[in-house]
Amino acid sequence: MNRLEKQLQFILEIDKVKKIIRQTPLSDASRKENDAEHSWHIALMAYLLQEYAEEPVEVSKVMLMVLIHDLVEIDAGDTYAYDEEGAKTKDERERKAADHIFGMLPEDQGMYLKALWEEFEAYETAEAKYAHLLDNFQPLLLNDAAGGISWTEHQVKKSQIYKRNEKVEETSATIWKCMQDKIDKHIQAGHVLDE
Amino acid sequence: MNRLEKQLQFILEIDKVKKIIRQTPLSDASRKENDAEHSWHIALMAYLLQEYAEEPVEVSKVMLMVLIHDLVEIDAGDTYAYDEEGAKTKDERERKAADHIFGMLPEDQGMYLKALWEEFEAYETAEAKYAHLLDNFQPLLLNDAAGGISWTEHQVKKSQIYKRNEKVEETSATIWKCMQDKIDKHIQAGHVLDE
Repeated sequence: MNRLEKQLQFILEIDKVKKIIRQTPLSDASRKENDAEHSWHIALMAYLLQEYAEEPVEVSKVMLMVLIHDLVEIDAGDTYAYDEEGAKTKDERERKAADHIFGMLPEDQGMYLKALWEEFEAYETAEAKYAHLLDNFQPLLLNDAAGGISWTEHQVKKSQIYKRNEKVEETSATIWKCMQDKIDKHIQAGHVLDE
Repeated sequence: MNRLEKQLQFILEIDKVKKIIRQTPLSDASRKENDAEHSWHIALMAYLLQEYAEEPVEVSKVMLMVLIHDLVEIDAGDTYAYDEEGAKTKDERERKAADHIFGMLPEDQGMYLKALWEEFEAYETAEAKYAHLLDNFQPLLLNDAAGGISWTEHQVKKSQIYKRNEKVEETSATIWKCMQDKIDKHIQAGHVLDE
């Protein structure tokens, strides 16, 4: 297979991301969103919210990182943020999936994108921390707009949300303050359990 | 409203893009795709296919351009590529929509994104030509994978496809060759009218 054929095969394979349904509702609560929609949304948010990052970030790198961050779910499936059983096998499932999906590309592009996904997963660089902030903030915004339905549905606890977002404050104090205000509102409303 | 509040209101407003249905099928023909999914797909293609552009392109600019290129459809609706009636009013509808959607943002960001959308529409710079190539090539790839159903459904003619893609050859001879091969295949199969 030549270089362009490999790239086109990859482009068709990742079309499957549009069928991976997340637990996050659209803002009007009409249905749940999928991974492609989520990735589009946070790629654009990467541009819009860059001024709030405590460390300078290379926005174009973050955009590409978030565009590909969920491709492993084509093989591994979506693991809900507060699914403790699923979390146990998530790493291994996703590593195998990364080998497969990025292995479809010409070697230079496949290695670059796989390294970018690994950087995201390691959650250490300024870009990875900002990408995770976006990945957590966007569902919170949608869920807030939709009346907190995914927290209610999954009986989510404040301590779980805080644990998941423990690096957000160091990534952006402004965004963390905004997230805390929204979480507090949903604790008051009984959508998030105060424990 | 402060700066962050404006940005968050914009982020929620653009969630509506996920409900704008296009005429392009998913590759497995299970349903039609929406603008958010399409924009995600071509933003990633901007990275993958950059080597085929005849003129050098600034990929990060193209990525942002394609992420926002369909936001005007929130107010103006999607105009199918071969809808001649809709095409007559498309420009005016979309200009009004651009004023509204980009006007929601803080002025610096709104002006930058509106100018980027205008650059896309003017179809003159290397980045705009490459963005249009992606915007046309992606539905062709999906429609090809899905057996040509949207061409059949809308009785599309070869001359219409060639007219729409008249700048593709100067943007990328390699991609144009690939597109021609696929169009020919669907003329042979009777999905595209040979006129």
